[in-house]
Amino acid sequence: MGEVHRLTLGDVLGEHRRSRPLGIACVDGDVRLTYPDLDERVNRLANALAADGVGAGDRVLWLGQNSFRVLELLLAAARLGAICCPANWRQSADELAFVLGDLTPRVVVWADSEEVRKAREMTGGDGGAAPDARWVRSGDEYESYVEAAPAGEPAAEVAVDAPVLALYTAAFDGRPNAALLSHAALIAHSMSLLHIRQMENGFTFLNCGPLFHVGTMMFCLATLQLGGTNVFTPAFEAEEVCRLIEAEKCTQAFLFGPMIDGLVQANQSANHDLSSLRFVSHSPEWDAMITVDDSPWCAAKMGGYGQTEVGGMLTFLGLGLGGAGHAGRPSPLTHVRILDADDAEMPAGEVGEICARGQSVFSGYWARPELSAAKSAGGWHHTGDLGRREADGTITFIGPRLRMIKSAAENVYPAEVERALKTHPAIADAAVIGVPDERFGQTVKAIVRLADDADVGADEIVEHVRSQIASYKRPRHVEFAESIPKKGHLPDYDVLDERYGGGAYPGT
Amino acid sequence: MGEVHRLTLGDVLGEHRRSRPLGIACVDGDVRLTYPDLDERVNRLANALAADGVGAGDRVLWLGQNSFRVLELLLAAARLGAICCPANWRQSADELAFVLGDLTPRVVVWADSEEVRKAREMTGGDGGAAPDARWVRSGDEYESYVEAAPAGEPAAEVAVDAPVLALYTAAFDGRPNAALLSHAALIAHSMSLLHIRQMENGFTFLNCGPLFHVGTMMFCLATLQLGGTNVFTPAFEAEEVCRLIEAEKCTQAFLFGPMIDGLVQANQSANHDLSSLRFVSHSPEWDAMITVDDSPWCAAKMGGYGQTEVGGMLTFLGLGLGGAGHAGRPSPLTHVRILDADDAEMPAGEVGEICARGQSVFSGYWARPELSAAKSAGGWHHTGDLGRREADGTITFIGPRLRMIKSAAENVYPAEVERALKTHPAIADAAVIGVPDERFGQTVKAIVRLADDADVGADEIVEHVRSQIASYKRPRHVEFAESIPKKGHLPDYDVLDERYGGGAYPGT
Repeated sequence: MGEVHRLTLGDVLGEHRRSRPLGIACVDGDVRLTYPDLDERVNRLANALAADGVGAGDRVLWLGQNSFRVLELLLAAARLGAICCPANWRQSADELAFVLGDLTPRVVVWADSEEVRKAREMTGGDGGAAPDARWVRSGDEYESYVEAAPAGEPAAEVAVDAPVLALYTAAFDGRPNAALLSHAALIAHSMSLLHIRQMENGFTFLNCGPLFHVGTMMFCLATLQLGGTNVFTPAFEAEEVCRLIEAEKCTQAFLFGPMIDGLVQANQSANHDLSSLRFVSHSPEWDAMITVDDSPWCAAKMGGYGQTEVGGMLTFLGLGLGGAGHAGRPSPLTHVRILDADDAEMPAGEVGEICARGQSVFSGYWARPELSAAKSAGGWHHTGDLGRREADGTITFIGPRLRMIKSAAENVYPAEVERALKTHPAIADAAVIGVPDERFGQTVKAIVRLADDADVGADEIVEHVRSQIASYKRPRHVEFAESIPKKGHLPDYDVLDERYGGGAYPGT
Repeated sequence: MGEVHRLTLGDVLGEHRRSRPLGIACVDGDVRLTYPDLDERVNRLANALAADGVGAGDRVLWLGQNSFRVLELLLAAARLGAICCPANWRQSADELAFVLGDLTPRVVVWADSEEVRKAREMTGGDGGAAPDARWVRSGDEYESYVEAAPAGEPAAEVAVDAPVLALYTAAFDGRPNAALLSHAALIAHSMSLLHIRQMENGFTFLNCGPLFHVGTMMFCLATLQLGGTNVFTPAFEAEEVCRLIEAEKCTQAFLFGPMIDGLVQANQSANHDLSSLRFVSHSPEWDAMITVDDSPWCAAKMGGYGQTEVGGMLTFLGLGLGGAGHAGRPSPLTHVRILDADDAEMPAGEVGEICARGQSVFSGYWARPELSAAKSAGGWHHTGDLGRREADGTITFIGPRLRMIKSAAENVYPAEVERALKTHPAIADAAVIGVPDERFGQTVKAIVRLADDADVGADEIVEHVRSQIASYKRPRHVEFAESIPKKGHLPDYDVLDERYGGGAYPGT
């Protein structure tokens, strides 16, 4: 791409400075910044960061709750070709220290907390994991840091495929990894949201979910892309969220089920006018408070499939309304293949790994060259999740591909068999492991917890599974259990293997 | 961009083959193609073209009216990294021969006409301008050509920034130039339209304007991007367009004022149900026939500013509703600067050349290296048109920057002064030239045609202009004329210079 095709996050802001001189970019407590205000502050901050040695590829870290300064720090990094990471401030000192040592940021902007102080002590100084970081405390110190720097736009040349945002995500090997997203990927993802959510001029987004999570960040960035208004609140607090929706006439907020119930509760006596909010239907009380949105995003109950590594959403149910697959269809800037373990495409109806290509796919993990190469093997991003193309072309998300059973030459994913088992009305919960088998290498064993008062035999269970998925995937053994051991919301397969004789997995 | 970020037009089609196995891609007379049908035909056509030597960067030419085969040819070229040009079939044999010699296509798909036969004779054979082209006649010969080739997807590696579409456009030097648009540019432009037009699942576009023009082609491609249905008709015919809107439940068609009046006339007795059409309000009769659309595209009467070289639209009035500038604001994937002749940015309120960057900008003209370099000097695409940022950030399109007057150190664009002159109620028409001036190099002279019965003196005219634009741009001389000589819809400046003493232009 030549310079004439360039569009970075810094360029997006630069256009809004010109196109929306009176437009409000950020609202946060007493702070109200127009786009020219934000542009000038971002330039000052970028110049301050540059004076502290931040250049192309360097990291700056945000340690704190939501703030308009997260967006400033991201855009200042964007103007320098650097990378901004808003870290999960809920983490322990040990976890924060891991992030500091992993990212080795040149500048850390931090809000005071005991855990942050501890993490700083653990990593600073000679021999520490991040000895050279410059720490700038959010508040007066940050404001002085910004104001003291010159207001001119930095002269850095920034490539559209340079990473600009790092978000820590799934721990494949027990420690989190920072997914790197480029200017091009974030802008592409924003365009998909502008399209699906039908975001219009004047869009105002309330950042009441955590900005270290892609679910909030993706709407913050789409709102920026459009030149709308981002309203920030440190964290979700129902009464304050109601107040802000009314005061700023917010069009959307980061909300899901329990948060919505909290708002309905807080606004019982209708003391706040929430009608500016265009959102998904939830309950009669909620629907009466807001404007129910009929865009393809909200019509589909905000469904789809996504992950941090694709910038947010990969598929949208709104593009597959009425289809068989509950994850819908890919965003217009991505394409999807369902691949087997050898990266061959699976026919419709068969389960494989959801793999993707497209503009919004990430650029690998920070400092994880081997894992990054494995994720993009063969030129396809491997999501690590299982899915299926339905006959109508829509996509069903099955579950994480944590492990695979190999029975004869066939791959069997526990998540798929578990899904089939749980459709039986007598089965309350189920997990599937592979047990060693002389003839087939492994066979499938189901551990089943029956519903109260249910009575069903192993044969019927096997027959039920066989009626739903390929015969070779059916359990050869069924054991009944009082409970399924869990690790988070998933079965604890290590315990299950030990207890029920699992083993001989491929690759072991 | 790595392979994992790749999205070409061929990839878009490949995704739809999987995502929309039953979706109708094309309708044209008796032809109805699902996405898998289209994908297979495109692969066969690509393999046939490859067998005729078409590879990366080679050109294929369409000479005929609208047809689903235009889209097939474009997508087959896309799968090979080649370039497709749908030429203006209304041109004379001489003009068609120019295109043949300019593009030197390897394959020409043609519909029979006397002009095309003549052009073929003029350029074919030894010593001709395009001696080696393989000619395939649309119809049975084309069908055999497609069917005889294998159905597998060609293995070509295609870069997202490779040109794939060539559209002939503005004749700067008296002959047309083919603007080259890449996969990335066309996909970016489609995303802007999906967003602004709020195109939803099931969108059906009637291609009743000419596909050699970006106005129709841009919606054809956006419909493809979404996985919607493109309906083709050879050319605009009011009765047939009414029939097709009803029969295919078209959501949109390429229509403007006189065409809409024709449809209202043709559908006087309401024999066709046009209610599927979501379109801009036009007249009470029209509004009663269709569904008036309130998307930002139609709410703004489809306004904005564009040209072939930016893939269609650069700015959308829908992004600047209520603003002072009638061209609105840039699409979210572009950014705009108003630059002077030295490429310095003009402040708000001052006229300069509209220059742009972004994903949808073209890749230069075919075989015009010097002109292409001039158009993207300094890393900005120079549109050749004049515009102004208003105080509210919106953009006003002034007119083509055909020539410039240099008075002292100041640049004066005739179009801007003419626009100011014509706002005076007594002035029916006006043109502005530069006349040699010993002190200033040049000064501004206005040639004015007064409205019937109007009576106004030169002083009042000069004062009127001074009240609207910068004082140095006001005419120093005013001449009254019975008529203004024209070249097309613009003043004939050569005649005016000769008749009224123009000269000493910068660069001459």
